[in-house]
Amino acid sequence: MSQWERREIVVRKLPTGHAMTVPVFRCRGRNEHPLAYIQANIHGAELQGNAAILALFELLEAETPRGSLVLVPRVNPIAGNQQLGDYVAGVFDLLTGANFNRSYLYLTGPSRSSSACYVDVDAFAAANRTAQVGDIRSGFRKALGAALEGVREESRAWGLDARVELALAIQELAVEADVVLDLHTGDRAPRYLYAPHDARAAIRAFGFPFVIEVPARFAGALDEAAFVPWQDLSDAFARAGRNDVPRLVDGFTVELGSMNAFSLADGRKDARRLVSALRYYGVLDGEPDESDARLVACDLADYRSVFSPDSGLIDLAVAPGTAVSKGDVLARVVDPSRCGSPPHAWEAVTDVHAPADGVALLFHAARGAIATTLFEVAERFQIVDIGFRVHRRRDLTARSPRSDGRRRRRSGHEEVGAHAARDLA
Amino acid sequence: MSQWERREIVVRKLPTGHAMTVPVFRCRGRNEHPLAYIQANIHGAELQGNAAILALFELLEAETPRGSLVLVPRVNPIAGNQQLGDYVAGVFDLLTGANFNRSYLYLTGPSRSSSACYVDVDAFAAANRTAQVGDIRSGFRKALGAALEGVREESRAWGLDARVELALAIQELAVEADVVLDLHTGDRAPRYLYAPHDARAAIRAFGFPFVIEVPARFAGALDEAAFVPWQDLSDAFARAGRNDVPRLVDGFTVELGSMNAFSLADGRKDARRLVSALRYYGVLDGEPDESDARLVACDLADYRSVFSPDSGLIDLAVAPGTAVSKGDVLARVVDPSRCGSPPHAWEAVTDVHAPADGVALLFHAARGAIATTLFEVAERFQIVDIGFRVHRRRDLTARSPRSDGRRRRRSGHEEVGAHAARDLA
Amino acid sequence: MSQWERREIVVRKLPTGHAMTVPVFRCRGRNEHPLAYIQANIHGAELQGNAAILALFELLEAETPRGSLVLVPRVNPIAGNQQLGDYVAGVFDLLTGANFNRSYLYLTGPSRSSSACYVDVDAFAAANRTAQVGDIRSGFRKALGAALEGVREESRAWGLDARVELALAIQELAVEADVVLDLHTGDRAPRYLYAPHDARAAIRAFGFPFVIEVPARFAGALDEAAFVPWQDLSDAFARAGRNDVPRLVDGFTVELGSMNAFSLADGRKDARRLVSALRYYGVLDGEPDESDARLVACDLADYRSVFSPDSGLIDLAVAPGTAVSKGDVLARVVDPSRCGSPPHAWEAVTDVHAPADGVALLFHAARGAIATTLFEVAERFQIVDIGFRVHRRRDLTARSPRSDGRRRRRSGHEEVGAHAARDLA
Amino acid sequence: MSQWERREIVVRKLPTGHAMTVPVFRCRGRNEHPLAYIQANIHGAELQGNAAILALFELLEAETPRGSLVLVPRVNPIAGNQQLGDYVAGVFDLLTGANFNRSYLYLTGPSRSSSACYVDVDAFAAANRTAQVGDIRSGFRKALGAALEGVREESRAWGLDARVELALAIQELAVEADVVLDLHTGDRAPRYLYAPHDARAAIRAFGFPFVIEVPARFAGALDEAAFVPWQDLSDAFARAGRNDVPRLVDGFTVELGSMNAFSLADGRKDARRLVSALRYYGVLDGEPDESDARLVACDLADYRSVFSPDSGLIDLAVAPGTAVSKGDVLARVVDPSRCGSPPHAWEAVTDVHAPADGVALLFHAARGAIATTLFEVAERFQIVDIGFRVHRRRDLTARSPRSDGRRRRRSGHEEVGAHAARDLA
Repeated sequence: MSQWERREIVVRKLPTGHAMTVPVFRCRGRNEHPLAYIQANIHGAELQGNAAILALFELLEAETPRGSLVLVPRVNPIAGNQQLGDYVAGVFDLLTGANFNRSYLYLTGPSRSSSACYVDVDAFAAANRTAQVGDIRSGFRKALGAALEGVREESRAWGLDARVELALAIQELAVEADVVLDLHTGDRAPRYLYAPHDARAAIRAFGFPFVIEVPARFAGALDEAAFVPWQDLSDAFARAGRNDVPRLVDGFTVELGSMNAFSLADGRKDARRLVSALRYYGVLDGEPDESDARLVACDLADYRSVFSPDSGLIDLAVAPGTAVSKGDVLARVVDPSRCGSPPHAWEAVTDVHAPADGVALLFHAARGAIATTLFEVAERFQIVDIGFRVHRRRDLTARSPRSDGRRRRRSGHEEVGAHAARDLA
Repeated sequence: MSQWERREIVVRKLPTGHAMTVPVFRCRGRNEHPLAYIQANIHGAELQGNAAILALFELLEAETPRGSLVLVPRVNPIAGNQQLGDYVAGVFDLLTGANFNRSYLYLTGPSRSSSACYVDVDAFAAANRTAQVGDIRSGFRKALGAALEGVREESRAWGLDARVELALAIQELAVEADVVLDLHTGDRAPRYLYAPHDARAAIRAFGFPFVIEVPARFAGALDEAAFVPWQDLSDAFARAGRNDVPRLVDGFTVELGSMNAFSLADGRKDARRLVSALRYYGVLDGEPDESDARLVACDLADYRSVFSPDSGLIDLAVAPGTAVSKGDVLARVVDPSRCGSPPHAWEAVTDVHAPADGVALLFHAARGAIATTLFEVAERFQIVDIGFRVHRRRDLTARSPRSDGRRRRRSGHEEVGAHAARDLA
Repeated sequence: MSQWERREIVVRKLPTGHAMTVPVFRCRGRNEHPLAYIQANIHGAELQGNAAILALFELLEAETPRGSLVLVPRVNPIAGNQQLGDYVAGVFDLLTGANFNRSYLYLTGPSRSSSACYVDVDAFAAANRTAQVGDIRSGFRKALGAALEGVREESRAWGLDARVELALAIQELAVEADVVLDLHTGDRAPRYLYAPHDARAAIRAFGFPFVIEVPARFAGALDEAAFVPWQDLSDAFARAGRNDVPRLVDGFTVELGSMNAFSLADGRKDARRLVSALRYYGVLDGEPDESDARLVACDLADYRSVFSPDSGLIDLAVAPGTAVSKGDVLARVVDPSRCGSPPHAWEAVTDVHAPADGVALLFHAARGAIATTLFEVAERFQIVDIGFRVHRRRDLTARSPRSDGRRRRRSGHEEVGAHAARDLA
Repeated sequence: MSQWERREIVVRKLPTGHAMTVPVFRCRGRNEHPLAYIQANIHGAELQGNAAILALFELLEAETPRGSLVLVPRVNPIAGNQQLGDYVAGVFDLLTGANFNRSYLYLTGPSRSSSACYVDVDAFAAANRTAQVGDIRSGFRKALGAALEGVREESRAWGLDARVELALAIQELAVEADVVLDLHTGDRAPRYLYAPHDARAAIRAFGFPFVIEVPARFAGALDEAAFVPWQDLSDAFARAGRNDVPRLVDGFTVELGSMNAFSLADGRKDARRLVSALRYYGVLDGEPDESDARLVACDLADYRSVFSPDSGLIDLAVAPGTAVSKGDVLARVVDPSRCGSPPHAWEAVTDVHAPADGVALLFHAARGAIATTLFEVAERFQIVDIGFRVHRRRDLTARSPRSDGRRRRRSGHEEVGAHAARDLA
């Protein structure tokens, strides 16, 4: 039987003194670890992750996990309440402009109040030169936790920056996890995944058709905040001559379709993919799904935005998730004020062409209309933001033996289990 | 051959001094009247009307109108540029909160700066007791125009309220028209129509499946600003004992689907319906379409909002445009923070039931999700705004002989034509 | 000894389910009536009323009222939390555009869901033709309360419009009061007062230098919602032949300086004026202050806005509260982009002249700058909004014997006291 | 005689197609260099710099510069038009959340589309090992310009990110300058200056009482974008063994008081300080002012924010620019909803104490109220943001012989003059 605990954490007090609380559901299965941290809705209009977590609640009524889960639906009440007219506009904080998913602390990078690092990986590797991997894991996790405590402590005298307050509360929860899933959506997009580079077996377990592979360079997002310090640690041990310390924590951004859409029925389908990944990581028992689907992946650096060459309304020429060739029309940008006298409808229309081969992944709305995008997209508000995956990968789409990668990870997680057992003993 | 004229009018100067201009396309056919005024996109996110006007441009390349048209796509650059994040939020002015479609001047009502009416219909009827209908039409139109000039004149000393500036510029164009079409969209809605009460034959010419009939009471919208003064005039003549002065101008709000959607292809279909109505009004030659569709209409007073009983994300149970019975589930309102420990998914879900029989017409987004609505909907921002048409009309859905109503209107418009000819002579 | 009661009412649930609560402090002195309802901060940036209410808390620690008070600081958490960047922008609801002080229900006007009035004053006067004034007061108050209950009841089936929800909660509190004070601030303004027409003695008790007299015509504000139904009742009795039923309830909008300013020290000074008015109304014992100050009053209709003739930054030429003559420079509107080559500073400057004699009362900020205003001002966002009091009143500035008006009111309030005593017996 | 040129550059096209233009005034004096680039109002509510530039226009009618100036008032029409209600909220872009003064390109850092640097300073130093300083200056300026051209060129295929579009247009102007002045204001603040570290003589020429010294680390602001690449170049030459290449360009952020304030009269005073600095840099003839004022400076790292410990309205206890000791009350944070029953005013008040000795420099408004700040301040929107300068510097406040530093700089600028002469020759 699972043990459930529910608590509320406060992530901001409004100017009027009302506390913005977040519900945190902790499910302890047979072991404390491996532990998955799963949150939804850090951006206000990205709703669908809540449906997936509700579906996980249903599944966890029937199944006791092998490890544990911390589930946080609706993690950001500030974003969720930022409504203007009929639409939520919750990507950045209306107080500060800060993107809610770019404000996490880089715990192996320079600290905010000094040039010293929060945790110095090389010093840690030196001090733990001969330690076992399980002890390295627990020791490093403690060090990361202590860094977070230090930030909290300093805030007692100087107060706490609103940008950091929410991030700190989330990292205090997520620092315990072996795998972190941050449930988002695109603007108008299919399901896709941001995964750490070098995590192909896990990627297969998710089974999403499109994958963007993130290098171990911190840029403020939660997936990076989760895995980059552990990659840094692995690299530090490698520099110190030990190559047996893999990255021990993974972090993913899971994109569950389009903004401002919400379906309980689709949530059950989305949950099945998360469950498969949780089986892969040993949080749940059983084998992950065998996905026959062809996956399309690209490096984050190859995921580029196409910005519209002109202003106007967007009439999409291809659906998100479509492969296109250089020169294909992605969208028509329409501004009726460009018509002369007598007016010709064609004068209003500017075609946007694909600047390279790729897959049009994500479309940004502009003037309420839809912007065509391949991989990535940005915020050229005049219009369209169209990102491209320039080079198609072959190695991933050619199916590699799943078990290999899997075995490597599992061995790591067996240790997690062992460690967890020790904790409980 | 049509004669085209294109000009730009200024509807606001931004704080930085940049002029917000609007393109006005005037197409003069064989006669100056009947004249149709058609505008699109007064609300920022209601885009589709622009596609319909572009399609009208295409049609007017092939066909010379019997009367004239003034076509104003993208009539409101202030609303169109009010973007926050990826979405346009252009229903109300971020300067003042004023809904852009509620600020028109009621030209037969009390003036803004005194309790006297702009134009006193009873005085006009008394002064024109024995005039012919054609002269009444031209005289009253002149009186309305003079009222608008008076507002403009007063602004020279005191300046001009931003709320009125845009409305005044539009009314200066629309006051010349015999029929006014204001192209909008719902939030998430099918195509439907706001029509003046007592305009069934015209309604058939449009052929939209859903119709809301607007009484002759001014509430600030453009359709009312167009037809209510003329109804007031007709009523004043009736009070003075003349029953041969019908309402000589009609105004419609045409709802072309959902916000933040834009399709050139659909614009061509939408234009066909507008063309049919323009044939009905004699602006274009030919007969309006024979619509076999069953129309569902209700009085504006019967078009009611259902507001959500609780906060949360909306999972729609019925599609916009669906007939429902009292007690049917319209939507599920979902808030995962309502779950306890252990959490059950059903704890998060509150069903919203139809409080009466009706048609769920329009759904308002809330938290980015979709809100279920029958007729009307409002702004209970927590969530759903669900409006209902309570009583189904029979008389309209039973098809009445179209030609009758048509003939009545035509006779009026023949006079318009005659009058126009005199003006030109 | 006063009896205090504190409770929290909920005025909205946020999309995330958090309840927006408002603290209501009720202080019962020796009698339940006369009862004063005082609220602050219905608009988000109008802060100073909170300091005045805190100062009233201090005063009420030392003094037991003769009547009672309901004190509601920070009455509008929705507005108070609507912050964009460093500034609060809480005049209208970002959900709907509705001005928070224009959404109250007119309880002797037509109801929202039908053309019948909530309470029909002529029917009430007919039914109470021979009743005593005290019974008329209590009976009419009950009728108003029942109308509010009807709105609440209807909301059980259809839900409640966000626009009405807050207004209804406030009117449920204020309907019990004999005098209502709604504490606001101007944009950049001196202290001034909106008072019901025909309340000069009370106006003297407040002692504010500037007064705008509001006719008994409902336009949505709380002061009107408080006193207009009682004026309507008085008028109905007069129509029925009884001239001994005065307006039994007064409502004031008290403007305590400028937006976005807050001072506890000034709050103590502001409270002294409120206390003087409360003495006048018999809520507190003792005599109101004798004000020697020259008061300047004008009718609401004479309080006009001057809108800027051009866009730009505003360099004020006169301070708010200054008397000006027609043609005086009120402000300089500055746009450096108007300079040519070589640029001359004077090319950037447009002077705004007073279009009439008056007092420049209120300046609206535009582009962050300050806009010069006499009486009233509006929202021409390009710039300046400058309102004028066109005609100076003499009768008020010539001091009339205070005791007269006072005696009339007191006699009314003695009855309140008697009535209250009966209620308690 | 000066030669003036005026042109308009386009920095964005609105969704409706309207071009947002910026006026650029170029004044060529006796030499092309030294060239000062001065802009105002990059943040929407920071108005006062426009008044200073207008006053410079006046001065330049009487005086021909020794060098040249590029003057850009109202440089950011996007920010200037972002108005919500009465206030401008123009610090970050409502499209993207990006702070308008954090999006500049770091031209000696890694480029946006690859890991290579735009300009590699070590490679440049190697290639110019034996070049003269004047040639180094012109060669490096050309390299920086070429990097900007490369970004522009790439945008032809992929479009241009809205975040970069404005920054690129500004840097294309500023790259030519020998000194860059970016005119800002604080929220509620005295006049103060952000200066490059190691520019004390120039600091004296400005004569502002408070100075924050910025290290040569790029964080996105214009002052850094101006001087950091040149410091990087100087450092690269030092690494290559040449210590005779100083930083050849300086950049300053000049803070001219408080947001949402604008005064032509104060603009003339502000301009005098800018003129003194321009004389120091040799752009204008004559000697800079001898300032006797005691300057207080601190490192950027010592300029810290105090965030409010609680929510509420802010009642300032000290004025911006006041020296305080650890433990002093900076502000009172007031929330009336914290009062119990019976309510005591003191229950509503939380004191904010200085966590260290310092100068309270800048106060951030929150809930419209004022937040107390010493050096820096942040965005804890609940309230106060209070920054501190922890350690007082002695070396600056002890007056050092101005001429020394001055001479060093001048020698550099003599070369500028010489170089400029060569260009013209």
